[in-house]
Amino acid sequence: MTQNELGIFEQLESEVRSYCRSFPTIFTKAKGYKMWDKEGNEYIDFFSGAGALNYGHNDPTMKKKLIEYISEDGITHSLDMATTAKADFIKKFNDVILKPRNLDYKIMFPGPTGTNTVESALKLARKVTGRTDVISFTNGFHGMTIGSLSVTGNAFKRKGAGIPLQNVVTMPYDNFVNDELDTLDYLERFLEDNGSGVEIPAAMILETVQGEGGINAARFEWLKRIEEICNRWGILLIVDDVQAGVGRTGTFFSFEKAGIKPDIVCLSKSLSGYGLPFAVTLFRPDLDIWEPGEHNGTFRGNNHAFVTATAALTYWENESFENEIQEKSTIIYDFLSKIVKDYPELKGEVKGRGFMVGISSEVDGLSNKVAAKAFENGLIMETSGPKDEVFKLFPPLNIDKDGLEKGLQIIEESVKELTKEPVAN
Amino acid sequence: MTQNELGIFEQLESEVRSYCRSFPTIFTKAKGYKMWDKEGNEYIDFFSGAGALNYGHNDPTMKKKLIEYISEDGITHSLDMATTAKADFIKKFNDVILKPRNLDYKIMFPGPTGTNTVESALKLARKVTGRTDVISFTNGFHGMTIGSLSVTGNAFKRKGAGIPLQNVVTMPYDNFVNDELDTLDYLERFLEDNGSGVEIPAAMILETVQGEGGINAARFEWLKRIEEICNRWGILLIVDDVQAGVGRTGTFFSFEKAGIKPDIVCLSKSLSGYGLPFAVTLFRPDLDIWEPGEHNGTFRGNNHAFVTATAALTYWENESFENEIQEKSTIIYDFLSKIVKDYPELKGEVKGRGFMVGISSEVDGLSNKVAAKAFENGLIMETSGPKDEVFKLFPPLNIDKDGLEKGLQIIEESVKELTKEPVAN
Amino acid sequence: MTQNELGIFEQLESEVRSYCRSFPTIFTKAKGYKMWDKEGNEYIDFFSGAGALNYGHNDPTMKKKLIEYISEDGITHSLDMATTAKADFIKKFNDVILKPRNLDYKIMFPGPTGTNTVESALKLARKVTGRTDVISFTNGFHGMTIGSLSVTGNAFKRKGAGIPLQNVVTMPYDNFVNDELDTLDYLERFLEDNGSGVEIPAAMILETVQGEGGINAARFEWLKRIEEICNRWGILLIVDDVQAGVGRTGTFFSFEKAGIKPDIVCLSKSLSGYGLPFAVTLFRPDLDIWEPGEHNGTFRGNNHAFVTATAALTYWENESFENEIQEKSTIIYDFLSKIVKDYPELKGEVKGRGFMVGISSEVDGLSNKVAAKAFENGLIMETSGPKDEVFKLFPPLNIDKDGLEKGLQIIEESVKELTKEPVAN
Amino acid sequence: MTQNELGIFEQLESEVRSYCRSFPTIFTKAKGYKMWDKEGNEYIDFFSGAGALNYGHNDPTMKKKLIEYISEDGITHSLDMATTAKADFIKKFNDVILKPRNLDYKIMFPGPTGTNTVESALKLARKVTGRTDVISFTNGFHGMTIGSLSVTGNAFKRKGAGIPLQNVVTMPYDNFVNDELDTLDYLERFLEDNGSGVEIPAAMILETVQGEGGINAARFEWLKRIEEICNRWGILLIVDDVQAGVGRTGTFFSFEKAGIKPDIVCLSKSLSGYGLPFAVTLFRPDLDIWEPGEHNGTFRGNNHAFVTATAALTYWENESFENEIQEKSTIIYDFLSKIVKDYPELKGEVKGRGFMVGISSEVDGLSNKVAAKAFENGLIMETSGPKDEVFKLFPPLNIDKDGLEKGLQIIEESVKELTKEPVAN
Repeated sequence: MTQNELGIFEQLESEVRSYCRSFPTIFTKAKGYKMWDKEGNEYIDFFSGAGALNYGHNDPTMKKKLIEYISEDGITHSLDMATTAKADFIKKFNDVILKPRNLDYKIMFPGPTGTNTVESALKLARKVTGRTDVISFTNGFHGMTIGSLSVTGNAFKRKGAGIPLQNVVTMPYDNFVNDELDTLDYLERFLEDNGSGVEIPAAMILETVQGEGGINAARFEWLKRIEEICNRWGILLIVDDVQAGVGRTGTFFSFEKAGIKPDIVCLSKSLSGYGLPFAVTLFRPDLDIWEPGEHNGTFRGNNHAFVTATAALTYWENESFENEIQEKSTIIYDFLSKIVKDYPELKGEVKGRGFMVGISSEVDGLSNKVAAKAFENGLIMETSGPKDEVFKLFPPLNIDKDGLEKGLQIIEESVKELTKEPVAN
Repeated sequence: MTQNELGIFEQLESEVRSYCRSFPTIFTKAKGYKMWDKEGNEYIDFFSGAGALNYGHNDPTMKKKLIEYISEDGITHSLDMATTAKADFIKKFNDVILKPRNLDYKIMFPGPTGTNTVESALKLARKVTGRTDVISFTNGFHGMTIGSLSVTGNAFKRKGAGIPLQNVVTMPYDNFVNDELDTLDYLERFLEDNGSGVEIPAAMILETVQGEGGINAARFEWLKRIEEICNRWGILLIVDDVQAGVGRTGTFFSFEKAGIKPDIVCLSKSLSGYGLPFAVTLFRPDLDIWEPGEHNGTFRGNNHAFVTATAALTYWENESFENEIQEKSTIIYDFLSKIVKDYPELKGEVKGRGFMVGISSEVDGLSNKVAAKAFENGLIMETSGPKDEVFKLFPPLNIDKDGLEKGLQIIEESVKELTKEPVAN
Repeated sequence: MTQNELGIFEQLESEVRSYCRSFPTIFTKAKGYKMWDKEGNEYIDFFSGAGALNYGHNDPTMKKKLIEYISEDGITHSLDMATTAKADFIKKFNDVILKPRNLDYKIMFPGPTGTNTVESALKLARKVTGRTDVISFTNGFHGMTIGSLSVTGNAFKRKGAGIPLQNVVTMPYDNFVNDELDTLDYLERFLEDNGSGVEIPAAMILETVQGEGGINAARFEWLKRIEEICNRWGILLIVDDVQAGVGRTGTFFSFEKAGIKPDIVCLSKSLSGYGLPFAVTLFRPDLDIWEPGEHNGTFRGNNHAFVTATAALTYWENESFENEIQEKSTIIYDFLSKIVKDYPELKGEVKGRGFMVGISSEVDGLSNKVAAKAFENGLIMETSGPKDEVFKLFPPLNIDKDGLEKGLQIIEESVKELTKEPVAN
Repeated sequence: MTQNELGIFEQLESEVRSYCRSFPTIFTKAKGYKMWDKEGNEYIDFFSGAGALNYGHNDPTMKKKLIEYISEDGITHSLDMATTAKADFIKKFNDVILKPRNLDYKIMFPGPTGTNTVESALKLARKVTGRTDVISFTNGFHGMTIGSLSVTGNAFKRKGAGIPLQNVVTMPYDNFVNDELDTLDYLERFLEDNGSGVEIPAAMILETVQGEGGINAARFEWLKRIEEICNRWGILLIVDDVQAGVGRTGTFFSFEKAGIKPDIVCLSKSLSGYGLPFAVTLFRPDLDIWEPGEHNGTFRGNNHAFVTATAALTYWENESFENEIQEKSTIIYDFLSKIVKDYPELKGEVKGRGFMVGISSEVDGLSNKVAAKAFENGLIMETSGPKDEVFKLFPPLNIDKDGLEKGLQIIEESVKELTKEPVAN
């Protein structure tokens, strides 16, 4: 790829562009866990569209369904009119996902992105409770529009708002302060003391594993206690499962193993299965007090996404897919533990759950170097955390073991090059 | 279509659904200006996805390109990594749209919906100026996320926020108060008097023709004076061309004939050409002070949309398309004028510009009845305005004259049935 | 007064000090309409503590009562405990002021300053209506604490907040835009159009004559129409009578001649009669839904002020005082009209009502020069308006005709020196 | 006192009145630590105007000076013009208070009440730093106007705002969560982690002993660490010494023994010495970037208060007054410890520091009963804390030992009656 060809982006695209700086090449084609650029280089994708490509690129079954649908002039765009593609999705989502998990949720189509579903969840929670404040958590990430940005922790992103972000109280996520302190002791004091300056909020919003915030996985007991606290105080619990959902942590919803039932759930990213813009907001039927059209959006009926999303649900019709994820998770986890042990120069710590994992390095800037080196070596992987201190493994869930091993090998090589070599000098 | 089949939506979809109530059938297929439902009924589409389908449904050229792209496993989802599909779009958009109009804009991909581009525009304006307030206009509509909702006038939508909407001052749009008063005399007094309680804002945001707000078209002189005022006070002018842009008012950008050059432009809806989620924010290069990643979003690189959007730009390579729109606009305008004259019971007034037109009826509820009757007669059309007092004609721009005539005929019949008949009794 | 002696203020007092810069001398003694400085210079006071000394300095009757009270160890400070001094005030205020005017108001003691009463009024209006927004008016001035500052128009003062001021919409005061436009046509359009972006507010707050804002007197018809609009939409009308009240415009309350009955009235400044900190908030009994202690303040029971305020009410026991004000107002008004006519170089306009009057000069900075020159000539007078374009006559209401004439003469001399002399060159 | 006579308050004063409900009698006269009502009953005052009467009622020296000043027609009201009374105060305050404590502060007169000084402090901190947020602490109390109310913890008071209170983050005061946790570990994590959602604030505002919040005394080490944290992050430290200052905790400023030097200090309540409305804001000279008049107020020049405040400073000219307070503090502390021990039914805990002390009882409602019983027995005392769980001893600082003993005796009797008696039955 010549510098010349990337020049079009430098010349015409805003400075806000970012991933094209980390991965400076022009991609042309992708299949499963592989991507190719214009010069024919092949890359293993451990990034998966930041969690939007959990089934890999261009899954053949979904692709076939989508081409058929387009060929037959199926409805493409429908706002929230009824279409067969939409009906099929709703029905299958209910049958394959909600019913078997005893989740009695209404489905809302709030616009096709993560921030749309989060904004709709916040609005609904405030409407239902008549309260204005929402409790968010340190290092939470929920989106870039003002409502979602208000509940996002990252200072750099918040500053981008250009206005003070209001109606939000940030509480410490699990393990935020130190290992001894249960941060919920702290949170509860604020709720129970009516001189605390913190009023009972409309909702708490959280990710069970924080993706952008540094692959922080909350303990299941912590999540259970959050649910109890919400119940005790009549606070709605919103789980933002945009990144951790759709299998990324091992189950369809990330909160299943914690044994909790959120009042509102936000889904997007991998929901369409094919990387197409799509989001839903799920909530308890008794919360469904929306007036018709009170929240709307032009692309809340993206029928191509309905088609691929319906096809994607096939993965969840029996337990084999979850079992495979579990199996491969163990491989990844063992690998990461070994890396931390074998390369003490990393000052690393394994983080995360399932296929949402990474290594946090105490060495300033090292994780960024590992990701850059990996890219040189043919693997795509991003970093996260307030100081980009975590390199983040997000392979597609359906990657085969061969691909997985190759990817892990590249990571080890990259770590080795960056840690062992200086010693050799 | 049996009630039974629509039941799946009633049972599982949130009460927030709305258009499926106005058009109670399940659509299956669409082509150009026609849609078909499950029972085989054919409809003429004068709704065009609220402006997202300016080229009609499933345009054959775009369809072909899209199927090819999918078949070859082109990149589907890429965040903001560089892809050939994206490079092609950027280049062609610059060559076909920006350059010929002497518009030297940087292109930002803010997420794929109208509200994403509006939120990014507001953030940028505040960042550039260091000011917090934004001036919006009465009956403006800009989106449902908190930032965009703050600059939206509609009380029902605003209430949905559940929190006070801040950092915004609403000024009267052209003709808001009455015909005699130039509302900008009013606005300027507020800016020039430093005891007015209104500080110099970061930006003004407006639509040149207000779609949701009642098809209010601002006079070109008014728009020119807005630009002058913005220049005088160092205020950034944001034109939200999400609904009025991409040809809807007769030119690619709705502001071309007014002779103004906004500092920031928001585009979405018909930009992909095919009804796929897509949006860009355009701005003067000197405003491009974004830090990399300061605003981001999972679906800011929807490559399917790049492919169809690039194909759609072919329409704009010479002047014939604009000429056709102009020609057909005259037909529509003459038709509407005649309707208003021939059916005085409507107490109607023609509103709008180009293919973004309608009739505002003073008779409470009558416009809704016209739209409902038209649907019975096989035409899809929506209403707008604070009291739904306008029935709104949004045919595809590339509708043929035969289709246009048929649609207009259905409208006349529907009006006639609702106005003449009672007289006959 | 030597510069040296003023040095203590320069050295130790904050830069925020202001009037001591306009009147650079140290005052020691005052009586009626006269003040004396350390060097024995005598000044005529046409400033009256910005409206806090409507009865002049150190009124002999009040002085006697106050010394007696102090000598007998009457309660000085009582929070809101019951005291005889407080009971006496409440009773006399009801008998002399409220009852004869058919005003059935509850009395609240919100803390002893103007901004305290305004803040309490805003809180009560929001509590009663459950709404958050308040409509204020251009060039309104209501105080320096965040709630009051939010409804104050002056940009310089607002900037002092350091945060965006919220929950307020500013509407144009009478004659704000131009003479032809009734600004209430505009305001009403915003209320009646539910797409206007302006929601029905909890309250409107206004001064009937704007003191700090430039001595703008609203027409009585305008005030009446405000009251009608408030009634129509269920909006509470708050009259901030802190500066215009207690006789300043000719009647005890400034709104009496307009024939309106505000829902809430704010009084302070001259209420104590003696220049002591004191304020009350008056409101319709049915609005009195405060919980005990919901708004409080350490100095809400300033008993010295109760004592002098009770004595001051004697002025209002019959109509003679009002008649005298009226008579002297005519003298002042005729004088100002003559000045404007005789000194066209002033480009002046007479403004205001009663004893709350001034001349607005179009000549940049001239009003400030007039006030400075007057001070040199032995008269104290301030300027107001967004550009200090008005020199403001606020003599004590009980000034005798001799004092009044002397003061007016100094003003004329000062104007003459500043306008005629250049012509002589 | 007959019910009849209190009727005037019930009939005409707002329901917001509160202390007159706890102490249902009409007071007429007061001297030192004694008050008398209309029926001639004598009360010992352990309330001291909630800290506004630290020198007791109507101190003879101040009284003499005040009467002289009034008799000679000294300036009463002067806004912020220079007067001899003001110059005298400034000079003596600098000589007796600031210089000996090595405190190089500028003095601002922000209006005469506690909430005025707090609002001015918050405005200045935001202006100096250009930041919007302020950190306040749980159970802090700073006033009733919107700016001060935003940093006040009490939910009941906050609700009175009628709008969401913004631009504030509440952090846990010393010992808020439990005894093990140093709450500043928590606070620091929020500051150092840039994903915490808490931005570096303009200021922290706190009381060293929280009066209204339940007589919580922060440890000196905690205060020192607060100062260190503020220094490390460039945060301004505001000590609100309105209630704890002017000797209440044993030294003139409450923070002296902690060895810290706040950037900004708020003083009011007992500052005038005589219970007259008066407040100052003190700050480091380099922070004095106010523009003239940027914050103002009608009663910022209350000369009667200057006169008594200057007289009051005589108490501080040598160390004997502080020594006496210290001595009597020990008596009080020993007494309270004994009460807690002797009356285990109280489930009491001694709280506070110096003359700002009380007993917190775990028994619901018991502290209120103690205060009510004490009133029956001739002693005035209030309760505080989020549940009124503390009965609060605020004797005048200059009470003699005899008066102190009598007061303590009444308290013991009242506690005994409420705890022992039931046992006796």
